Amino acid sequence: MNKSVYLSIQVQKLKQLLNDLEPAIADIINQPGSPRAAYEPISYILSLGGKRIRPAMVLAAYKLYNDEYTEEVYKVAQAVEMFHNFTLLHDDIMDNSPLRRGQETVHIKWDDATAILSGDLLQIEVYEKLAEVGNVEILKLFNAMARELCEGQMNDMQFEKMDIVSNEGYLDMIRQKTAVLLGFSLQAGAILGGASKEDGKKLYDLGISIGLGFQLMDDYLDSFGETAKVGKRIGGDILEKKKTYLWNEMWSRLDDNERQEILKSYSSDSSAITHVKKAMDESGAKDYTLKLAQEYTVNSLNTLKHFNTSGDKVYLEEIVHMLAGRES
Amino acid sequence: MNKSVYLSIQVQKLKQLLNDLEPAIADIINQPGSPRAAYEPISYILSLGGKRIRPAMVLAAYKLYNDEYTEEVYKVAQAVEMFHNFTLLHDDIMDNSPLRRGQETVHIKWDDATAILSGDLLQIEVYEKLAEVGNVEILKLFNAMARELCEGQMNDMQFEKMDIVSNEGYLDMIRQKTAVLLGFSLQAGAILGGASKEDGKKLYDLGISIGLGFQLMDDYLDSFGETAKVGKRIGGDILEKKKTYLWNEMWSRLDDNERQEILKSYSSDSSAITHVKKAMDESGAKDYTLKLAQEYTVNSLNTLKHFNTSGDKVYLEEIVHMLAGRES
Repeated sequence: MNKSVYLSIQVQKLKQLLNDLEPAIADIINQPGSPRAAYEPISYILSLGGKRIRPAMVLAAYKLYNDEYTEEVYKVAQAVEMFHNFTLLHDDIMDNSPLRRGQETVHIKWDDATAILSGDLLQIEVYEKLAEVGNVEILKLFNAMARELCEGQMNDMQFEKMDIVSNEGYLDMIRQKTAVLLGFSLQAGAILGGASKEDGKKLYDLGISIGLGFQLMDDYLDSFGETAKVGKRIGGDILEKKKTYLWNEMWSRLDDNERQEILKSYSSDSSAITHVKKAMDESGAKDYTLKLAQEYTVNSLNTLKHFNTSGDKVYLEEIVHMLAGRES
Repeated sequence: MNKSVYLSIQVQKLKQLLNDLEPAIADIINQPGSPRAAYEPISYILSLGGKRIRPAMVLAAYKLYNDEYTEEVYKVAQAVEMFHNFTLLHDDIMDNSPLRRGQETVHIKWDDATAILSGDLLQIEVYEKLAEVGNVEILKLFNAMARELCEGQMNDMQFEKMDIVSNEGYLDMIRQKTAVLLGFSLQAGAILGGASKEDGKKLYDLGISIGLGFQLMDDYLDSFGETAKVGKRIGGDILEKKKTYLWNEMWSRLDDNERQEILKSYSSDSSAITHVKKAMDESGAKDYTLKLAQEYTVNSLNTLKHFNTSGDKVYLEEIVHMLAGRES
């Protein structure tokens, strides 16, 4: 079998997984509650799409152990997708974001009060799903994850007020804000599939590694990707002077004069993007960040390759490839 | 034993109950997490005080069945107080309230983003407590209650945009927004004490009745109480044209001319309060609302009197008296 045939089989498998998910996703988009004003924004944000990575990871980890889905594994898949959208609802208010996936955010389309309240309601629905699953271990893991995610959002907001953030601080923040939910998704799916406690923990760690690689690549593509592929204007992070790994690495490599030049370039938006990208490239920060992102991905695939299970690993492998930007 | 001695024993019992609660409350006020920016607002709002009615109701319902507290009953008591404060944190943003118990609200003292995020974190801590209790039945009851409470907050916000609300609509809204949490507090405390399913349901209904009486009396006192006793300026609801039971009842009793007079009186704040209070009184709405509030309280005490249990009812009786405004 040559490589391209193998890849197309992999895509086939991931497509099948996402297909399996569809009824569960349609079920959570359909929000029949009353008053409508509280439920419509929940339907709206859930219907905006996205890659459904997190519920796919729940199913893919389950597949490492078991081939026949249960009601419980679908409920956990729904819960993680709902929780992700709850965080988007509230983060968009906190970050003052007007757009989400090219559509108006809930706090713009409705108002702040509606976005706060619908988010709270969606969060309660997440716990309804988890209560239906009735697994107290999974509930506790979820809570620990959710707490870290909130802490990560606060750290992210605090970083915005700082001039420079250490690489260690940044990696810890994206671990909290992005990676722990991926770690939980794998761990919970595996537990429901029948994984040992030890395997569950290993898959959590794998989720962290996948998440860090994904976020670093996401940051990289925000500055060095192509608009057509990334689906948004390039340079947004640079314009906001976001303290990404890329920025911090560049900043630490520049001398005082070069830093002054960077700050001066912000008198004109277009000049800033060009100037900062050049500095990121010439300082070596660009290559260094790309290499780190790729290392996380390679390590993730390697861990998965040597992971001892009789189940099917292809679903999860394909997800890692997709998140690494090789397929999208 | 004469009546005054009996009453002082009752107060003694409630004081003892609140005393039993103190370490559990101190424990949730102490929030050691990091980053501090996420945890300090939680400590702050929990430390503003309040009567701690909801955790007291958990303990009082438990006392109907069992005299020796367990760790679990304290955890549920903590959870309901934390959940109540989570709703305050977010409601204060939605309602644009500058003050809470005479102190700056979190979104004023910090900012909206901090109040949203600390609220989300506090909500997760509520579920951590419930996961530690590990009773899936209580978790499901909690979720159903929390969902209704969110729906009630949305209904409340919707009512603000309406000219008139039906008595039925208003009572249903305060049932959701205020009474269901009291109902849950009693039901959960009773379940942990060993109550039958049927008794648990009866105590939930009792909590609803107590909650409706409490909220109607609270509305009444907002217009007809004394500042010294109520602890806030009298007439706030009238100034905001809040569609309380009192207002709606008055409005439905007035003819078109009288309604025009009411609306005209709002050209001056002080004239509006005097004018509306007079109309509430002369239309009979004042007496009618007071009578309804008292009926709920009398019915609650009556239900409790005939409630079949070998445990101690005095704690809960005393709480009902306190909420009815006889003791405060």
